[in-house]
Parts: sequence; structure tokens; C-alpha cells
Amino acid sequence: MAKKLGKQTYVMDTPPTIAGFAAIGSKKEGEGPLGQYFDVINFDSTFSQKTWEKAESKLAHDTVELAVKKAGLSYQDIDCIFAGDLLNQCIGSTFGVRELGIPYLGIYGACSTMAEGLMLAAFLADGGGMQNIIASTASHFCTAERQYRFPLEYGGQRTPTSQWTVTGSGAAVVTAGGGAGPFIRAATVGTIEDKGIKDAANMGAAMAPAAAATIQQFFADTGTRPEDYDLILTGDLGQVGSDLLYELLLREDVDIKSRHTDCGLLIYDPDKQDVHAGASGCGCCASVLCSYILPSVVAGRLKKLLFIATGALLSPTSTQQGESIPSVAHLVYITSEPGQGV
Amino acid sequence: MAKKLGKQTYVMDTPPTIAGFAAIGSKKEGEGPLGQYFDVINFDSTFSQKTWEKAESKLAHDTVELAVKKAGLSYQDIDCIFAGDLLNQCIGSTFGVRELGIPYLGIYGACSTMAEGLMLAAFLADGGGMQNIIASTASHFCTAERQYRFPLEYGGQRTPTSQWTVTGSGAAVVTAGGGAGPFIRAATVGTIEDKGIKDAANMGAAMAPAAAATIQQFFADTGTRPEDYDLILTGDLGQVGSDLLYELLLREDVDIKSRHTDCGLLIYDPDKQDVHAGASGCGCCASVLCSYILPSVVAGRLKKLLFIATGALLSPTSTQQGESIPSVAHLVYITSEPGQGV
Repeated sequence: MAKKLGKQTYVMDTPPTIAGFAAIGSKKEGEGPLGQYFDVINFDSTFSQKTWEKAESKLAHDTVELAVKKAGLSYQDIDCIFAGDLLNQCIGSTFGVRELGIPYLGIYGACSTMAEGLMLAAFLADGGGMQNIIASTASHFCTAERQYRFPLEYGGQRTPTSQWTVTGSGAAVVTAGGGAGPFIRAATVGTIEDKGIKDAANMGAAMAPAAAATIQQFFADTGTRPEDYDLILTGDLGQVGSDLLYELLLREDVDIKSRHTDCGLLIYDPDKQDVHAGASGCGCCASVLCSYILPSVVAGRLKKLLFIATGALLSPTSTQQGESIPSVAHLVYITSEPGQGV
Repeated sequence: MAKKLGKQTYVMDTPPTIAGFAAIGSKKEGEGPLGQYFDVINFDSTFSQKTWEKAESKLAHDTVELAVKKAGLSYQDIDCIFAGDLLNQCIGSTFGVRELGIPYLGIYGACSTMAEGLMLAAFLADGGGMQNIIASTASHFCTAERQYRFPLEYGGQRTPTSQWTVTGSGAAVVTAGGGAGPFIRAATVGTIEDKGIKDAANMGAAMAPAAAATIQQFFADTGTRPEDYDLILTGDLGQVGSDLLYELLLREDVDIKSRHTDCGLLIYDPDKQDVHAGASGCGCCASVLCSYILPSVVAGRLKKLLFIATGALLSPTSTQQGESIPSVAHLVYITSEPGQGV
């Protein structure tokens, strides 16, 4: 079973392994710099479905199917799935996996969903008696746009701080101790942070304090420094949020800049694909992790990875009622070797 | 750490204890047969807030505060909170607890949220290295009505199969091994079931198959029978769903009728409070459990309790798009004695 370290960090006893993972994207993601790393790029963003919501469900379904297949398992081998998304009542996930017969535990962490799912899967593989657990999430530009912002047909102008919701998905099968890795060694559960940002078109600013709090807590809990890691990967702060993250951490004498990048800055080409401040959506960091990043851990090019997914816990209703934006960030420490401790 | 039993059931190694719990309701709940058991009945259903959503957040906040106090703990003692609700993006919970500084893991299980939270809390207390974990949820008639159905001012007529959303909440502090109980001995993670029901005003019919599947699986996994338990408590199937549950289980030669009741049938008086098929909402089974039921376990009047919370995983969007209603039910086995196994 996991052991608590410091205030919010838990170190796995026998680090669970990520036995299989998959990422699917659509046209814009395929045309971006990471396009070649996705398992599937479907240039039809309807995914042959009649509505955008059903397209998102299809995306979630196909990614889970592929991750299970790549892990060399069948649905009967899976003890449970942690899934969630941005849609009201998480219908992208529930309708996506409803026919698979896998015990289902729904989670809601907005764009922090992938890290939340991975950490819960690791906890239950390490100390819950489960063998194989899926963490899954997806997002779709067209469902998010019409639910959170404007009807697609309206063609509203986007502000410079806005981020572009990824049409993409990631799913990972986390397996109890043993295996070849990548390994989930530790996790830091984030607190809700809210510094009063009310601009729903500036998620980076709203989420940066949550990322800073969790990253700083992890270093405090483990007594380690940014230089101890190969990569500190946030998702999805974009440019505005990443700059703020550096500033907030520097105030605490933590300098992560040389080790840091953000999934929201990797998936699209800033010169050729105009997405303003970067990318976002549950599927952004999930698909970047499961396409471009995890293979580098498997290959040993990345040995020590901190994956921090950030979520803005607002709704259109809370924004309309004048509320600020609470955010959360969860951290998962992933390594190429099983090892012990942090 | 927990051990897997059969296909979907997990038996805790050192059963965690529910060290503190609280329930808050409003006028209608106070006037019902369980009113006297609530910790607080606030006859002002706005809870002194400016919007119904903020009222629901206040309800969630106050219940968590009270549960922590009743457990003899402070917020600094809490390792994490599992919370969720019916509102889009779960803002009832996120805004409710954002100022508490407690590590936050959002869950979405619709009205199955309380059981999902309790089981995850038990897993993490038993094998995750955590000491104190909160499971919390709330619902509010006025937020649910306007989000899922009609504007409150519209005064739409309700169908005979419809259920009334409880304005209420429940929160429980689950503490690692030891303590005086009640104890969480085992949990069964439910699968998504969807038998094609499309009537969003008939949740009982949509959710009964999920309850039946999980209950049957628990008996199969543990080799036990309904007679082995003092109470089989579902929430919230109401009258229609309870009748269907009996019918579905009888087909498999499982007769639970003499041991069963449903939270949706307990909280309001069917003669004096016209709620048609019963009550519903995340806060229904959470508040019934944390007001009327758990004290009976503490007192030893109930020794062996199966608590099964059911959730309908639909959204207004999925209904408008002609979809049927996927449902899930999670089971938590609660006892007055720590014991071992099931």
C-alpha cells in the first residue's frame, strides 16, 4: 500500500505499471507537430456520428478499446475504469464506455481528469486489490465550444488569452506491480485554489496558482528539486498560464523553467495553427501524454517525469453568476524504472 | 490492502471506520418522517444565498464542516475529499469546499455519488496511506429542476413516475482502521447498465437494472444471501424502481423484499407529501444514510447493512438527442462490528 510523504504526496509501495496506452486525434491534431505520434488520426471530426456529443463518446470508446488491446488484455481483465470529461454530466465518458461491461467509477476534474484517473488507478492497483484499471478521458472542440461558449455557427471572435479545445483522447491501462513500465511511483493530490480570476476566456491565469501549489507541495513533500527530474509537464496552462506558473514558483525560489513544458503548447504549431494562448480540454494533456510522452518513457529517453494536469472547476452558470474560477492540479510521478521511494 | 472477491467485490483488510457524519435538509425534508434525525433543518431553502446554485454549495460546505467537527477533527487532519453532485461541472461541490484547503478529488456518479465516494474513501484509507477522507454530496430541488427539467416559474405538471429531488446533503469522514465504527467492510463496483429506457421522468425504471446487477453480483461474489443482512438499502429507486428491482432479482431467484427499503421512499411521507414515485437526487440517499441509518448502525440496531446508491448517467443533451439512460449502482457493505471478510 502507498505511504504518505509530507502533506499531500503518496508513494506507491510497488509502483504500478502503465501496461498499455492510446491516443486518438482529429484533423487539427493530425496537422500539428505531434500528429505522427497519435495511434489514430481521424480527419472526420464527426467520427461518423450524428451529433458532436456522440462523436466525443465514440472517441472515448475507441481509445479505451485500443489501450486495452495494446496492453494485450480484454475487457474481462479490467477491474474498473476511471473516466470523465467536460460535458455536462460527463456523457462523453458514460455513453462512450457503457457497452463495455467494465465496472465504472466516474470522476470530474475538468482538464485535470487524466492525472486524477491515473493516480486513483495507481492507488487501487497498489493497495486496492485490483489488477488492471483504466484511466480515460476525451474532449471535442465542437462540444466544448457550444456548451461553454457560443453556438459553433456564431463564429465569435476569440480573445488573445483563450485556448483551443483539443479534439482528442487518451486512455491508459494501469496494472498492479511488475511489468516493464512506465511506472507510477508517486502522486500528489491537489487542493482547490482560487485567486479571484473571473475571465472564463483566461483559463491559464485561473489554473496557474493550482499548478504552482501542487508542484511546490510535491517538492516540499519529497525534498527534491526541479533538477531531479527530466521533464515537468503541465497540461493545459498554455502560454499565459505557463508564464504565470514560472512567476508564482520563482516567488518561492523554485525555478522550473529549464525543465518545464506544457501540453497546451506542444500539440499545435503556434506559427501555422493559430490557437492564441495554446490548447486545452481534457483530451489535450491526455492525448499528449499517451502519444508523444509515454513512448519516450518506455524508450528510456525520459527517465523521471512529473505530469501535472490542471482543471478549471467552473461552469457557464457559475460564470454567469459572477463567480471566480476555482482550479485544481494533480501530480503523477512517472518513471522508466520501478525503483523505490521518490 | 483490500482483497478482490469474485468479480467486482473488494473486501477491506482493516475495515475503515466512519468516524463522523452529518446531514442537512430543508423545509420539505424537515416536515418528512426523518426530519427529526437530521443534524440541521434549515427552513430557508436559499440558505441565505443569492442563487440556488450558491445555496447548494452552502449546503455542501456546511455539511462537510459539521461532519469534520463531529469526527473530532479539523480540516488539517483530512487527507482528501471525494465530492460530486448533479450540477453541470459539479459546481455545488467545487464551490462548496473550495475554501477549506482540503485536497480535492472530484467524482461524478449522479445519485450514486455517496456510495462511490464512500468506497473510494475506504479503498484509500485501507490501502492508500491516507488517514481521514471525506465522502460528500448534496442536491437541491431548485437547481436540479431548472437544470434538468423546466424553469421553476413554469410550474410544469409532473408525471406519476417522477421523483422529487431532495434539498439535502450528507457527508462522512472515513478513517483508517480502528475506531468504534460503523465499519466499511467491503464494496462492489458497479457496471453501467442500459436497458433502453428513454423516459427521463422515470429514473426508477432506468436505474433498477443497475441496482439489480450490482446486488446480484455482490451475492455471487460473496456467496451470501439477502437473509444474511439486516437491511438492503437502495437509493433512489422510488416506488417504480423498487418494484422493478424485486422483479428483476426474482428472475434470478434472489428475493430481497423482506430486507429491502429505498431511501427515496423513506424521506417524504407518501400521504402528506405528494412526491409521486418517491424522492431522488444525490442528497437523498446521502442524507438518509447520514441522518437516520448510520446512527442505527452506531447503536448496534443495524449490524449488517448493504448500501447501494444508484445513478442515472444521462444529461438533458443526451435525452434531447434521443438517447436512452445508462445507469450505475455501487454497493458499500457497512457493519457495526469490524470483523473480517464478509
